[in-house]
Amino acid sequence: MKTHEVTFIREGKSILAEEGTTVLQAQRQAGLDPDAPCGGQGTCGKCMVHVTSGPVTGILKACQTKITGDMTVDTLVREKEHAILAEGFSRPVPLHPLLRFGRTHIRKVKPGDNLSDWDRLKLALEESFGESMEHLRPDLETASGLYEMLKETDTWYAAVSGDTLLDLQKEPIKGYLAAFDIGTTTVVGYLMDARTGRVLAVESSMNPQAQYGADVIMRANYALENGTENLSSCIRQTVQTILDTLAEKSGISTGCIYQTCIVGNTCMHHLFLGISPGALVHAPYNPAISQLLFLKASEYDLHIHPKGQLILLPDVAGFVGADTMGCLLCIRPDQQEEISLMIDIGTNGEMVLGNKDRLAACSTAAGPAFEGAKIECGMRGASGAVDHVEYREGTWNYTTVGSKKAIGICGSGLIDLIACLRKAGIIDESGKLLTEDGTASFTLVAAEESGNGSPVYLSQKDVREVQLAKAAIAAGIQLLQKELGITTDQIAHVYIAGAFGNYMNPKSACDIGLIPICLKERIVPVGNAAGEGSKIALINREELFYSDILAKEISFVELAASPEFQDCFVDELEFPELL
Amino acid sequence: MKTHEVTFIREGKSILAEEGTTVLQAQRQAGLDPDAPCGGQGTCGKCMVHVTSGPVTGILKACQTKITGDMTVDTLVREKEHAILAEGFSRPVPLHPLLRFGRTHIRKVKPGDNLSDWDRLKLALEESFGESMEHLRPDLETASGLYEMLKETDTWYAAVSGDTLLDLQKEPIKGYLAAFDIGTTTVVGYLMDARTGRVLAVESSMNPQAQYGADVIMRANYALENGTENLSSCIRQTVQTILDTLAEKSGISTGCIYQTCIVGNTCMHHLFLGISPGALVHAPYNPAISQLLFLKASEYDLHIHPKGQLILLPDVAGFVGADTMGCLLCIRPDQQEEISLMIDIGTNGEMVLGNKDRLAACSTAAGPAFEGAKIECGMRGASGAVDHVEYREGTWNYTTVGSKKAIGICGSGLIDLIACLRKAGIIDESGKLLTEDGTASFTLVAAEESGNGSPVYLSQKDVREVQLAKAAIAAGIQLLQKELGITTDQIAHVYIAGAFGNYMNPKSACDIGLIPICLKERIVPVGNAAGEGSKIALINREELFYSDILAKEISFVELAASPEFQDCFVDELEFPELL
Repeated sequence: MKTHEVTFIREGKSILAEEGTTVLQAQRQAGLDPDAPCGGQGTCGKCMVHVTSGPVTGILKACQTKITGDMTVDTLVREKEHAILAEGFSRPVPLHPLLRFGRTHIRKVKPGDNLSDWDRLKLALEESFGESMEHLRPDLETASGLYEMLKETDTWYAAVSGDTLLDLQKEPIKGYLAAFDIGTTTVVGYLMDARTGRVLAVESSMNPQAQYGADVIMRANYALENGTENLSSCIRQTVQTILDTLAEKSGISTGCIYQTCIVGNTCMHHLFLGISPGALVHAPYNPAISQLLFLKASEYDLHIHPKGQLILLPDVAGFVGADTMGCLLCIRPDQQEEISLMIDIGTNGEMVLGNKDRLAACSTAAGPAFEGAKIECGMRGASGAVDHVEYREGTWNYTTVGSKKAIGICGSGLIDLIACLRKAGIIDESGKLLTEDGTASFTLVAAEESGNGSPVYLSQKDVREVQLAKAAIAAGIQLLQKELGITTDQIAHVYIAGAFGNYMNPKSACDIGLIPICLKERIVPVGNAAGEGSKIALINREELFYSDILAKEISFVELAASPEFQDCFVDELEFPELL
Repeated sequence: MKTHEVTFIREGKSILAEEGTTVLQAQRQAGLDPDAPCGGQGTCGKCMVHVTSGPVTGILKACQTKITGDMTVDTLVREKEHAILAEGFSRPVPLHPLLRFGRTHIRKVKPGDNLSDWDRLKLALEESFGESMEHLRPDLETASGLYEMLKETDTWYAAVSGDTLLDLQKEPIKGYLAAFDIGTTTVVGYLMDARTGRVLAVESSMNPQAQYGADVIMRANYALENGTENLSSCIRQTVQTILDTLAEKSGISTGCIYQTCIVGNTCMHHLFLGISPGALVHAPYNPAISQLLFLKASEYDLHIHPKGQLILLPDVAGFVGADTMGCLLCIRPDQQEEISLMIDIGTNGEMVLGNKDRLAACSTAAGPAFEGAKIECGMRGASGAVDHVEYREGTWNYTTVGSKKAIGICGSGLIDLIACLRKAGIIDESGKLLTEDGTASFTLVAAEESGNGSPVYLSQKDVREVQLAKAAIAAGIQLLQKELGITTDQIAHVYIAGAFGNYMNPKSACDIGLIPICLKERIVPVGNAAGEGSKIALINREELFYSDILAKEISFVELAASPEFQDCFVDELEFPELL
């Protein structure tokens, strides 16, 4: 196979790429983590590069440019510092982790006792933890070493998690826990002291799987065509990098992290584990495996303590993942008398409605509009994104993330802008953009005021994208109400999880019909509730094990096949009347 | 380090050996499996080789000959075909194996079901096996493949063992089981059809660990000095070779063997698993780990089905191993009203006495005299071994294994010979050999009649070895009786396990005082009962799990530290009066 040298001048890297492959593939090959939310379909235009020398030159889509000779490429790398939401609403839970540490005194064998060294250790652990160790998994390596160890001293410090002995040390053990929320776009990790539950460090990163597609469907399709390996290995590496950074920030060794818990949507869950997403993306859209999992971290390329555990919270259904379970652990609507609605708006919108009597969940393909994708000037909530818009007495005001010059608009800005355009009479109930100049777009920031020389505007197509997204969520809420037989007014709290929920203006969300207007005063942003739930699972074992029961108890409402949902969805496409 | 070329002419092999290492080490290095029952101490003289060229030449002890230059060596390899006892007393047990096969119909997901593919498989397995699969271990690889598999067909054939799914196939599964008894000297393997419990093939082999020492103490010491690796890897290889041969004999693939069960004494058990025997050979002589173990065969270098299981029956105490547990499963004295005595005579003598009310066990360091070791003309029960001796009216008669010319004497021949010498008045009660010619030896086979030109004789020292061995066993029996508070006459059955027990003359055993004379008519040889127990564990799961309970219920009587045992032992050194 003929190869050509491709040089990336910004990164100072050269690789040999096969004839006929694309510049995007070459970027991946060089480990450059290119931004290609459409997965290389040629539709998003986010992968533009400047080919400065080669068979073709100019500013081109990397995914559409085939390599037919040696090339020099400027990747035009854009600002990659994103504001990732790590904080969440914290429900206080008692510190009662599955991972326990204890001082263990191993008694001598009396003549005639037919106890093995391992049996004596089990008895000692029972004494020190006050729990049966009958089902402790036999650990032959430790059993083999006990004879020599017990020559030194009878007193050892043990780390035990459930049925697994993780460590036996001569000195008291300082152990740590790491909780993760793997989102489609971002990954957040928390390091906690296992003895206090205190968070010592937080670290986040972009999900490198974005190079294989912006949304879960694109990534699933990539995995089905090419296998899960690329997607699994890059996310595992990112989790490891976060673990390394968390440890470094806290001045500990990663070898002292004994347990890590991961939440994520079902696709992130499957891809992290290297499980084919085939079942997820084909009707009837169910996970390959959904139960609470206890795995060996080392088997998933995580280098923490050599016997460290990897826990994955259960998925609820095909598109209601372990991240939703994390949110539920954070809120625990199943313990409450009042009815709560929990919405996690990301690429999909997952919703859970109910109280102690019953919970129902659904997932709507809301699309990534609120994450800035598919919106012409859309962007994530990064530096320079318009995040809030106000219209008062004919004047437009806006703020941006980091108070930088505007370069695009993120989800919270988008719903503000649309709410204001409705108020200003520029968008009608049907969603038609009635601009004065007759063009099908509204310019919020002129090119000369922007941070990148291009205007920040909203197109008719953008409005349609938002209508589709908000209608899906609004219809999902209606279907859940119907499932439980309750009226909107009975909903006492609306918990909005995720970055968008945290930054959005609840009034705008209601004004555009994303959330029923009567709930406006009941909206509680809970931030990264999924990540909070991941932490809760690590610090309280009852919560951890309850997640598996809860996952099975939730009624799952399948919207895709429901004619009722289609009706509701169409009804909800319109914007509400102005009050 | 300087090296020299050592050429083994019989085997046509050359190796480079380090200066100063011994010829025995070079033989091991070349994979020749040399016979060195004393472990290279220079005491047994079984490793004689003929160095035909080199710095020294002649017939020399391989273990004492250092390599200081290039050498050519004739290993003088002796007859290696041993008669290994594979058959045993068979207690009929119902066919109810832990390993099950079933046809499984996986139901389609109904919309709204939040079941994962894995959950659906569990439900299907519950239906087809009529048992809860709640605790089935999650198998991510299978879960990942289910989506594609279920596209093909909903009907699959499953192999399940306990909480583990071993296989899922489109066609009905033909599965096999392999039971092993790893003795210090010999290894026996049995292949069974998992659906019928029928034995399809039997194969045996010498235990290659003999090259590191004849008895468990020598091997344990070798392991403590050099690590367990050499000992573990050679026995695992032998088990694999037996598995391969069993499969070939039966015309099946080793990949169809789903489960293998191993019994062996505690040292064989530990060394197979790669566990240090440190705890075993130092007071208070307890195992590192003794419980019933379920392991992955592949992690112990056994290439059967990729997910195949390795089961080790529990050890009872430091020197009462899983082989004794095998014997107990074969006999099940705990189910009987009558009191039984079970004796397994090998290098050690393990004994279990009791009935349904209580069982007590002990182990005596009987020494390997009955296996032919430490006896000047002693040999294993191989071709040419004197196995029975008769003295009638001044005439001596004997038989040999395979009716070959005599080349030595094995355990059963030894006790016959001593019993006859007592009867002939040539050995007195104290064990003194009163030969006519005043030499301290009795020649049974003259040099000119033997198969190797050397006489087969019994020395005074040999008589002393047998006295020590039989006294240890007889004293052990007394201590067990004392523990249970019973008289000798209350013992209804004496089950003698192992090759020696099978071939020995019960009358001679009683005449020399190995077994109390009043039990002469109650002796039942049970053959390779340990191997039978290993088979029983595979074909009946109640027996398998009960072994773990039984192991804990047996009272272990520690003889080593008992002054009472010392007294008894000294009393038992004398031979009984002639009746």
